[in-house]
Amino acid sequence: MLLALATLLAFARAFGEVARKLGLPAVLGEIIAGLVLGRTVLGNVFPEFHGFLFPAEGPNAIALHGMTIFSVILFLLVAGLEVDVSTLIRLRRSAAIIGVTSICLPFAVGASLGWFTPALMGGSPGADPLVFSLFLGVALSIAALPVIAKTLMDLNLYRTDVGMMVIATAIFLDLVGWVIFAVVLGLMGHGAGATTATAIVATAVLAVAFAAFMFTIGRWAIDKALPWVHAHSAWPGGILAFAVVVALFSAAATEAIGIHAIFGAFLAGVALGDSPHLRERTRRTIEQFVGSIFAPLFFASIGLRVDFVQHFDLVLVMIVLAVACLSQTVGGTLGATLAGFPRRHALVIGLALNARGAMEIVLALLALQYGVISERLFVALVVMALVTSIIAGPAIQRVLGRRRSIRFKDCLSARAFVPDLKADTPAEAIGELVAAIASTLKAEERFDPEVVTAAVLEREAAMSTALDHSIAVPNARLEGITVSHVAVGVVRAGIDFNARDGQPTRLIFLVLTPKQEVELQLELLADIARTFHDRTLAQAAIRCPTFTEFVALLNTGAPPDPGTSVRRTVDG
Amino acid sequence: MLLALATLLAFARAFGEVARKLGLPAVLGEIIAGLVLGRTVLGNVFPEFHGFLFPAEGPNAIALHGMTIFSVILFLLVAGLEVDVSTLIRLRRSAAIIGVTSICLPFAVGASLGWFTPALMGGSPGADPLVFSLFLGVALSIAALPVIAKTLMDLNLYRTDVGMMVIATAIFLDLVGWVIFAVVLGLMGHGAGATTATAIVATAVLAVAFAAFMFTIGRWAIDKALPWVHAHSAWPGGILAFAVVVALFSAAATEAIGIHAIFGAFLAGVALGDSPHLRERTRRTIEQFVGSIFAPLFFASIGLRVDFVQHFDLVLVMIVLAVACLSQTVGGTLGATLAGFPRRHALVIGLALNARGAMEIVLALLALQYGVISERLFVALVVMALVTSIIAGPAIQRVLGRRRSIRFKDCLSARAFVPDLKADTPAEAIGELVAAIASTLKAEERFDPEVVTAAVLEREAAMSTALDHSIAVPNARLEGITVSHVAVGVVRAGIDFNARDGQPTRLIFLVLTPKQEVELQLELLADIARTFHDRTLAQAAIRCPTFTEFVALLNTGAPPDPGTSVRRTVDG
Repeated sequence: MLLALATLLAFARAFGEVARKLGLPAVLGEIIAGLVLGRTVLGNVFPEFHGFLFPAEGPNAIALHGMTIFSVILFLLVAGLEVDVSTLIRLRRSAAIIGVTSICLPFAVGASLGWFTPALMGGSPGADPLVFSLFLGVALSIAALPVIAKTLMDLNLYRTDVGMMVIATAIFLDLVGWVIFAVVLGLMGHGAGATTATAIVATAVLAVAFAAFMFTIGRWAIDKALPWVHAHSAWPGGILAFAVVVALFSAAATEAIGIHAIFGAFLAGVALGDSPHLRERTRRTIEQFVGSIFAPLFFASIGLRVDFVQHFDLVLVMIVLAVACLSQTVGGTLGATLAGFPRRHALVIGLALNARGAMEIVLALLALQYGVISERLFVALVVMALVTSIIAGPAIQRVLGRRRSIRFKDCLSARAFVPDLKADTPAEAIGELVAAIASTLKAEERFDPEVVTAAVLEREAAMSTALDHSIAVPNARLEGITVSHVAVGVVRAGIDFNARDGQPTRLIFLVLTPKQEVELQLELLADIARTFHDRTLAQAAIRCPTFTEFVALLNTGAPPDPGTSVRRTVDG
Repeated sequence: MLLALATLLAFARAFGEVARKLGLPAVLGEIIAGLVLGRTVLGNVFPEFHGFLFPAEGPNAIALHGMTIFSVILFLLVAGLEVDVSTLIRLRRSAAIIGVTSICLPFAVGASLGWFTPALMGGSPGADPLVFSLFLGVALSIAALPVIAKTLMDLNLYRTDVGMMVIATAIFLDLVGWVIFAVVLGLMGHGAGATTATAIVATAVLAVAFAAFMFTIGRWAIDKALPWVHAHSAWPGGILAFAVVVALFSAAATEAIGIHAIFGAFLAGVALGDSPHLRERTRRTIEQFVGSIFAPLFFASIGLRVDFVQHFDLVLVMIVLAVACLSQTVGGTLGATLAGFPRRHALVIGLALNARGAMEIVLALLALQYGVISERLFVALVVMALVTSIIAGPAIQRVLGRRRSIRFKDCLSARAFVPDLKADTPAEAIGELVAAIASTLKAEERFDPEVVTAAVLEREAAMSTALDHSIAVPNARLEGITVSHVAVGVVRAGIDFNARDGQPTRLIFLVLTPKQEVELQLELLADIARTFHDRTLAQAAIRCPTFTEFVALLNTGAPPDPGTSVRRTVDG
């Protein structure tokens, strides 16, 4: 079991990081990791080793399954924590308009398709047609708050009016979608043929009643309890445990009344996240731990279970994808236009809401487990969730003509990192760094180092680029290059760059940007200045022996640990 | 299963916090929580409910068992992270001397008792006598690094020469003890009667070889990998997952070669913690999550499994306790004297090393599971572990005549918190706060409020006690009180306390200490000044409406969350 867990987590993280590097959602990589380790690849190539590592039954299988249930509970807790009810309340009118259109249209389309063409859509033969069509309606109409928030942040749109509107609507969709979904899940539990109007109403009443309870009494009790927990327990361990306990109890409660456990975990997260007494650090610690360990385990275990190659049905995938994108984008855009947004912004809102993300996958998995959908449809829904998440960002970028905000660390390269510049003067240092960048260029972008060095020196002569903390940022905008380059050089002895504070310069960033991109150049220079505003970080950067350690320093924002030492004697 | 987990975690945390409040180790409370929920109490009172919550077999039992295995692996990872190898290397000579004596003496005593009187000592009837006596030797000679470090910190001894020596020796004991223990565990696995000299040697060689591997190649590889992980993965999620993966793989490896999994997890922690590239924040995040969720689950599950009342054998408990305390304290003191410490300091070292803590419990549990010891001895060892952990602090305090360092928040009380002082002058404010403290006193400590107010005002007249950030700390030392009192008052409008920065004072701490305790008074005043040096915290404290929220603020060191809001429009 330990080996299985270790392998699963290691692969999930590694593939997730690769996906992230390629600008794709980490969950894509995590699912692929599951595919590689699961029946799809490993099970076909080395069936015995696969059987040894992930037995289909027996205590290890049960323990692993228990871990995935625990993981999904924690994942939904985090998803709930991210729901900011106050934003929804502030923007309630418009959010309700957009929310209703972007639920109704996809839901109507999905439910009709499910009702009239269940075989084509890959319904499970034994499934109740009503449950199946309701499910398909929900599956097309939900939104994925985390993916949407991340996309908006990347595009620097998060704190704009359109961004906040998208978030508020996504929260609305999440809340309403989960209530509907909880009802559908409750109905799934009854088994085929047992679905009656009474059962639907009963489950719906229970789900709404539980949600109402969590939003009133539950929310109030949690808000009152938090200061008490903070005051009377170890910080931050007490509050972490409190959050997990609340999520588990709430999950157990929903499970007991016949709605799925994850609904309870999600509502517990919403109620917790809503309290102003929850500290930012608590939220972050839970998110980090869950996001780095439990979410990857859960998504990899999905890939593990289903053979994606065998159940891949191109026609169904295309239908699901087309219907999902069209109905959600049109619904969202329509609603936003009704709510008074100009057409271009309304389209952005529609496109953003189209991202389905991980939530869709959780939902599809449950439907698969309850036997409502076939494995064909499951695979199609997972593909749809991933594709809609991937295209949301580029689509919005296109509409707004806006690029992703750039960080200087994205412009670095190992060959343009020179930890031991030989230079004694600014001109020599700049010359060395220009040569370093030149060595990284492709043939068609090659420039004449001497011309570039001269351009940088001319800029430098106009005004020194030295900042505080022994840093300088010589720079130039060049014809003929299409992407930006940043070279990093260290001179331990220091060079006189004519700094304001009179200190010798030790850390030199050469910033070369395309001629026409004035804003981009300023953005990169500001990013460097902001990053090394912290004196400790600047000093640690000067000591970095390798490019890897330099990037590690930038990523972690903290220098390596100093050791501990004796400070005094007992009696001193 | 969700309900079982939720209940177990909730009880474990609650009892753990109560224990902490009483100045006892949290693990004591966690085990008691297990007892209450387990066979000892709940199983006897409501056997059906107990059976429903924690079934003895079936999928839920297996899943819960899987969770405890995962928990103990993470717990040992954290224990390993706390081992600071560089401290050991720096103090290697003395640490080796003290380490050898404080292993040899208890080990010799324990092993002889086990060999000659196995029945008296509660050996399991079927157990191999050699294995049993080896186990008893190890059980008496291990030390508990986390408990010892915590005790030393409480007494403000951690960064002294004696404190560092104790830590270095405890690290030595941990490393050597775990190697011996791994060997014993390997032998336990062979079953009764199978123990031969060859088996001992083979297991010992494997254990030492694995430890040597982790300390050389493993440590080197981890040290090289860390900057790479930092540079190429999401921070801090990537490194968290990396640590867990390394621990799981190492655990699986030791398990595969016939040594117990926790040995691998521990060594992985040591190798990770030894790398200077591991950031302080990573260490803290792992420790917080494990310490608050997984460690309580594990220790509560111990209480769950064994009926402590039925298997409590007073004679055995007293023998184990006496032998353990005597042999370890004498061994440690002897070694420290040999290493050149003065007698009093040597005794402190011996007493500190006597704390057995949670490690002893982990060890005893494994021996119980392998059938080497009886439940009687298991209970005795758990009691011994807890008692030695509890007495270490007070015993050292006695020898050194030193008290625990005090924080002003330990002197607060709800009735001496006045969020709305009516006062317009310093004299009126001080009068109100003196009255507030007077209302909290026991009859024999009552003082005349007017006399006390006059004394405080006299002190105030000599020099203003106003600090920066609108804070003042009027104070006095009084005859007739034995403990210190701090009252907190807020005047929103502000009072002129003649502050250096000319600002009106809004937050007033009245500090009353016993007449003879000059140092204590200074410590409390310094603590208040240090705490509210942070301007944000001072402002948040002024806004606190209740005592609970005030204490919550002190514990978390962070004000409640502000909401999010729109900053600009898309095109702006």
